[in-house]
Formats: sequence, C-alpha cells, structure tokens
Amino acid sequence: MAIASLTALLAFSCKESAGEVQAIFPRGELGAAENFTGNAWNTPLVDNDTTYNTLVGNVYFEPGARSNWHIHPAGQILIITDGRGYHQIKGQAKQVIKKGDVVQCPPHVEHWHGASPDFGMHQLYILPKTEKGIVTWLQKVTDDEYNSQ
Amino acid sequence: MAIASLTALLAFSCKESAGEVQAIFPRGELGAAENFTGNAWNTPLVDNDTTYNTLVGNVYFEPGARSNWHIHPAGQILIITDGRGYHQIKGQAKQVIKKGDVVQCPPHVEHWHGASPDFGMHQLYILPKTEKGIVTWLQKVTDDEYNSQ
Repeated sequence: MAIASLTALLAFSCKESAGEVQAIFPRGELGAAENFTGNAWNTPLVDNDTTYNTLVGNVYFEPGARSNWHIHPAGQILIITDGRGYHQIKGQAKQVIKKGDVVQCPPHVEHWHGASPDFGMHQLYILPKTEKGIVTWLQKVTDDEYNSQ
Repeated sequence: MAIASLTALLAFSCKESAGEVQAIFPRGELGAAENFTGNAWNTPLVDNDTTYNTLVGNVYFEPGARSNWHIHPAGQILIITDGRGYHQIKGQAKQVIKKGDVVQCPPHVEHWHGASPDFGMHQLYILPKTEKGIVTWLQKVTDDEYNSQ
C-alpha cells in the first residue's frame, strides 16, 4: 500500500511538472476586459520599430478565454507553442488549433482566437508590416459563436 | 530499499519526460553542411510570399552545432523556445542565450548562432521584409570563435 501510494503521488507530480501547457515566457499583463472574454495574458517580445516593422509577443489564454473579433491591416501569423484552442475567420468554420500549429490570417480579415474550454493555450503572434497599422478591435465573441462546431 | 529504488526510478522518468529540450515542431530537414557545423534541423513554418513578406521557421541545433557567419539584408529575430546556445554579432562578445530569450540582429550585420557544447537549442527565426532578400552565407565559425568567452 505504501509503495502504491508513493507511485500514485510521484506519477501525479510527474504529470504536473510535464503538463501539456508549458510556459516559455513570463505570464505578462492581463489583456483589457473590453478586448477579451476571460483571462488572456500578454507578454510583448519585440516592440514595433522602423527597422523590423514587426511586432511579436506571446499570449497565454486561460481555459475558455478568447479575444474579441478583430482585424489586422497587414494580417497576422500565430504559432501555437502549447495547449489547445480555436481560430475562426469570419464566414468560415471554427478551426481547432494545438501545439505546433501555425495559423495565418490575411490583411483586413475579421478573426478571433482563444483557448478551448478545458485547456489553456500559449500562442506567439507575429504582426508584419506594422507601418500599415496594428489592430482594430471589434465586438465580443458570443458564447454561441465560441461553442459552435 | 524497494521504495528508494522506485522513487529513484520514477524521479528519473519524470526528469526525462520534462527534459529541458522539448520539441514543439517536427525535426525537419538537415541543414546543408556548407552552411552549418554539426547537425542543425530546419522546419519551415511560414513560406515567403508577397502578403506577409515574412519567413518563419524553427531550427533545432544539436549540442555543438552552429551556423556559419551570415547576413540578413532586413535583419532577423530569434526566439529561443528551449535549450541553451550562443549568438554572436561580429566584433561583439559571444552572447549566451536560453529558453525564453529574444535576439534581434539588425540588417546587414554579420552574425552566427548555435547550441552550447552540452545542450541543444530550439529557436524560431523570423525574417521580416523578405522583399529585401533572405540570407547571404559566409565563412565557417571556427572552433576558436565557438569556444571564445
């Protein structure tokens, strides 16, 4: 019994430390409530400047958290580094995304992204050609939209 | 003794599964021997096009592996997602880099990057403004340069 308990305890500890959602970056700052539903934590990694004209950062979406609908004037590249979530382009089906996936959203196209209900998601975002602008925030993603198949 | 052995075994398994060099992407293709010393595995993530003008990929450098000296006409952004390694800009000291670090190398500046001798390194690379060009490969990084403090 002692060995069985010990095994269970260590297996649990191991699972926790090797959990699927592994942070590479610090948690960062909580995203503004008017632009996100639930908790989304933003860590800026590369500031906008005239040398690279590229903005890079990491967002950790807690389970159930998602962005509002929004538009990037020069498009956006997302790289999912851990966890599971969704990406949806207006007028298309919601896409399930997970660790290792890469998503591209073209310029001036309305989209949203966020975590699955039961699992958080870490995503790097890359905004190219920032001389064209960064983001225009739009309406909330409703529960019906979030839960759609 | 049985419990101690079990504890050691599980602790070892746990360490292995939560090891510091965790792959997010497939290993990819081996980099050309004329541009790299040792094994560097490249996984393209975003191809160059006229919409984003941004090239993105992942390189896994095995321990001791490094790029040649090279130049990017519009600069480069590196994001270290796991492991440990080095980045050096010509004329500056070699910089130690590790998981979570972000490195920017300006346009037309000679640099190299690679893994530490004992630990591999996973790095995302972002090349902005690809209309200006991608890369010019130069000479090998000598062992003296690689081992310099």
